[in-house]
Amino acid sequence: MKIAVDAMGGDNAPEEIVKGVAEARESLPDTEFILYGKKEEIEKYMTDFKNIKIVHTDEMITMEDEPVKAIRRKKNSSMVLAAQAVKNGDADAVFSAGNTGALLAAGLFIIGRIKGLDRPGMTATLPSLAGNNDNFTMLDVGANAESKAKNLHDFAILGNFYGTNVMHVTNPRIALLNNGTEYDKGDKIHKEAYQLLKNDESINFIGNIESRELLNGTADVVVTDGFTGNAVLKNIEGTALSMLKLVKETIMNSGVKGKMGGLLLKSAFSQIKEKMDYSKQGGAVLLGVKAPVVKAHGSSNANQVKNALIQEHEIVDSKLVKNLADYFEIHLQSIKQSEVDKENENN
Amino acid sequence: MKIAVDAMGGDNAPEEIVKGVAEARESLPDTEFILYGKKEEIEKYMTDFKNIKIVHTDEMITMEDEPVKAIRRKKNSSMVLAAQAVKNGDADAVFSAGNTGALLAAGLFIIGRIKGLDRPGMTATLPSLAGNNDNFTMLDVGANAESKAKNLHDFAILGNFYGTNVMHVTNPRIALLNNGTEYDKGDKIHKEAYQLLKNDESINFIGNIESRELLNGTADVVVTDGFTGNAVLKNIEGTALSMLKLVKETIMNSGVKGKMGGLLLKSAFSQIKEKMDYSKQGGAVLLGVKAPVVKAHGSSNANQVKNALIQEHEIVDSKLVKNLADYFEIHLQSIKQSEVDKENENN
Repeated sequence: MKIAVDAMGGDNAPEEIVKGVAEARESLPDTEFILYGKKEEIEKYMTDFKNIKIVHTDEMITMEDEPVKAIRRKKNSSMVLAAQAVKNGDADAVFSAGNTGALLAAGLFIIGRIKGLDRPGMTATLPSLAGNNDNFTMLDVGANAESKAKNLHDFAILGNFYGTNVMHVTNPRIALLNNGTEYDKGDKIHKEAYQLLKNDESINFIGNIESRELLNGTADVVVTDGFTGNAVLKNIEGTALSMLKLVKETIMNSGVKGKMGGLLLKSAFSQIKEKMDYSKQGGAVLLGVKAPVVKAHGSSNANQVKNALIQEHEIVDSKLVKNLADYFEIHLQSIKQSEVDKENENN
Repeated sequence: MKIAVDAMGGDNAPEEIVKGVAEARESLPDTEFILYGKKEEIEKYMTDFKNIKIVHTDEMITMEDEPVKAIRRKKNSSMVLAAQAVKNGDADAVFSAGNTGALLAAGLFIIGRIKGLDRPGMTATLPSLAGNNDNFTMLDVGANAESKAKNLHDFAILGNFYGTNVMHVTNPRIALLNNGTEYDKGDKIHKEAYQLLKNDESINFIGNIESRELLNGTADVVVTDGFTGNAVLKNIEGTALSMLKLVKETIMNSGVKGKMGGLLLKSAFSQIKEKMDYSKQGGAVLLGVKAPVVKAHGSSNANQVKNALIQEHEIVDSKLVKNLADYFEIHLQSIKQSEVDKENENN
């Protein structure tokens, strides 16, 4: 297996990226990593070249670059070259911790969408603090700012394959994030999406879920439009951090007793941070393009890069993309038909 | 002042409602409370009738009732009669802990919108865990499932008046909840709303805010569409509770040391719950109708009912509704014009 790595993407690139690759290499002896970026800088952090190949380029995409423009104009950037390698069949998957929008654009315009799918979705895997499974997958968390009901239905299908093949959940429970649990809740798009999901017998749709319930392990796959999904994902991060901070401050300000308690609880807190750290689950996956595209958090350290690469290896191994492509190939006709019908309704 | 109270709305009605009214009465000697509901049940929980009048009705709206139908058909329900009293000038404001959708419908169809305003917005006041102010107000948190850019602009104006007159913040910092801080982030509606807010010199617009930042005291008023606002509000509740639960469980499962710590931290935890309990701030306010409409959480106890009634008294005192009506009266022409312009753009 070959994974194309954008060695220059991310706040801690190339150091943490290169170190993460070196760590992942130990767990993935069958994998060759092709690192794209500044050769001399990359080599600074390498001990040996076992299973690692460097393709030198001076150009890179920054966090400030306008995504689509950057992909079109910076043809020799480390990210574009990594995506191009996948497109050309020189690699099986692409990894980056860089500009998310640019990576989405690279996935769409260089690697390309799976035939029959309008919009890819970006996943995030989050901890379930109750229930039988340790975590759940939510999509779309930001690949699309606007979504139609049909896109939400496609996200459910993508999520169902991801849950089954990569998360190894049997018949994953799929829920639609909505502003109420009743079937008739939400705006026009979510009402329509509910019906599409309810009528799709190929998925285990359990109905609407409210954002209050997300961390309670009620669903294995949560389907949402990219705008709401992005808001909720960032809100979980922010609220969880704020709460831990609040608990700490309250302890420290509640006198000696509290301070003692604080010391005693140090280990408890590190356990909690560990549990909430969803980068353990790897990166965000762009589902619906012709090859696995994994995006690690911009601030990722070597360990998080390693986790994301191991996850990406799992995705390639699982033949997820081929299964998705076959599915949409088969359903292409019926999907096209339903689009035609919807057009007619709307006109 | 007279406040019309739906005594039968909420999970703990009428007991906690009646007890809450009795408590509020002590802090609000100038206020008469008109309680609508089953006389004999209400009287069970009353010690005396000072400043309290009961209007008997057997009919009530349940949590299961379809909002608009319920308002139209249950003409003698406690909620409809309370709203009708405000409409008829027999009361200055209406309070309910009952069916939120029905209360929205009552506000819209019985009390009526302020002239010149298309859509009222529902507020929630949440704690700021950092920064100079103790809390911030977010709207719309669910009055509307679909919103146009103009509605978001109106929510900012409503929020600006609320922040100034009721929260007593000078020149409140107003931010737009979006999926990135840059001006060009979000879907079409949020991009358009950003421009409307930026060009409105009557408000202190500080730009986009991401949901990650909400609890950090960055803004005094957060403007959002009702669908995203509802999702984020419920997500803050759910994540905060999950985190406290997780901290407790981790303590309890981390051995004797942990258990000791847990005991030592009991007080810290109650302080935190106190800080996060935004019902302290009162209920949700439906802004943009011709009289104050306050909705307390369905599970409210007497103390939370009391807080919401004191807040409602403050709103009536502040002449908020009159100020809003005057504002929209004056701006009616220009608003209509901008609507015409928008129509033309769209066609």
